[in-house]
Amino acid sequence: MFSAIQAVYGGQPIDTLRTPTEMAVALCTPARFMEFALKNIVLVAFDQFTDIDLFLMWDILGRNTQDWHVRILAASATVRSAHGLQVSVHGPLCEANSADAVLFVSGKEGIPAALVAADFLPAFALDPSRQRIGAVCAGAFILERLGLLSGQATTHPQARSGLQALGLECLDQPLVSQGNVATAGGCLAALYLVGWLVQSWFGVDKRRATLLPVLPAGQQELYDALIGLSIRQAEIGVSAASS
Amino acid sequence: MFSAIQAVYGGQPIDTLRTPTEMAVALCTPARFMEFALKNIVLVAFDQFTDIDLFLMWDILGRNTQDWHVRILAASATVRSAHGLQVSVHGPLCEANSADAVLFVSGKEGIPAALVAADFLPAFALDPSRQRIGAVCAGAFILERLGLLSGQATTHPQARSGLQALGLECLDQPLVSQGNVATAGGCLAALYLVGWLVQSWFGVDKRRATLLPVLPAGQQELYDALIGLSIRQAEIGVSAASS
Repeated sequence: MFSAIQAVYGGQPIDTLRTPTEMAVALCTPARFMEFALKNIVLVAFDQFTDIDLFLMWDILGRNTQDWHVRILAASATVRSAHGLQVSVHGPLCEANSADAVLFVSGKEGIPAALVAADFLPAFALDPSRQRIGAVCAGAFILERLGLLSGQATTHPQARSGLQALGLECLDQPLVSQGNVATAGGCLAALYLVGWLVQSWFGVDKRRATLLPVLPAGQQELYDALIGLSIRQAEIGVSAASS
Repeated sequence: MFSAIQAVYGGQPIDTLRTPTEMAVALCTPARFMEFALKNIVLVAFDQFTDIDLFLMWDILGRNTQDWHVRILAASATVRSAHGLQVSVHGPLCEANSADAVLFVSGKEGIPAALVAADFLPAFALDPSRQRIGAVCAGAFILERLGLLSGQATTHPQARSGLQALGLECLDQPLVSQGNVATAGGCLAALYLVGWLVQSWFGVDKRRATLLPVLPAGQQELYDALIGLSIRQAEIGVSAASS
């Protein structure tokens, strides 16, 4: 049984599973099996990363310790944000390859530097058949270089022409998803990227519960509708193009 | 002339002003005088602060270096976020007293601890007649203790009953402003607090230009309308109660 779990979750350690009783129930319930282990989410950073991108996903995802754990990875032990905050990271880039989800942040100066750094792109061997993979804004350029994008994507409006020059159709919408790969455009669309990730694993109710605590008071229903719409639009955009 | 500027800006160093030529023009144009010096904005943090609150305001405000500068203050040289990120701060709490704007972040565990810390509340001598003062979520409890709130306010929905118990009417809306003091509820309402601050100093166009870069692609007009509405609602809520 344990080896089966490890096969599904890419070698994720057994000790990240829940109690033996809970695990036994889950293993006897195929529908729950896939959702049972603690998901391993990593955020990939680098020097000159966009502050909001990383910290927004870090905070929202960090509030739930029952369904997943989230860590920040980089090529160095510390990274410095675009606005000068120094952050200690939790592991090297290669750990992304065994994660259940890998989310790349952006960086106006950070992305171009990361793309040419000798220790950055070569560290990744991601597999969208077993991993959810996403990027905020110019993080889409990393996905493109890793061969993870085709057809349509989104990015920050200011980076759109650059992504189009690489042969991608860049949509003017906050989220574009193709199977297990998603791109988000505009820093706050990181909210939608997190929503997409959680919903794709755990369904709409968990997505709502995850995002609710950070939504503006008195506007929670409005934001919830907007988030749901944006996640649906992300899929519709792709299917419309392929039809 | 310089002493006049210092009087208005609470001892802000002359070297934060723009070029001598620009300054001369401004000093001869009363309408522009108040808006001319670089505004000095501080974000007040403490251990166990809510990650998003601080980093969202830090990133948005940090993108403009022409109109203001933003710094993080705390009682200690480093603070640790609710989710474990360690941040080096830029100055002690007492520097808030000479700032043009003071924005307090939240923290489910951080706020109660800060309120009883011997070196926290006593450090502040804020003056809403010359300073803009704001708070996100439970940061409202700091404003209340500093005697800066009366009548109406907002906070995180989960903290509402606590604020009401202190005699305040807690509105179910993302932003409430009374003159130079504003409270925001729900982490992402920090966006509105920043918008309120910038708009109150520099007008609607500067507020739009400040927030635009972080808005989700394809939804910028929608968010801009929502931000404008929330800022207007913040004032309407207060005036409706006083009428």
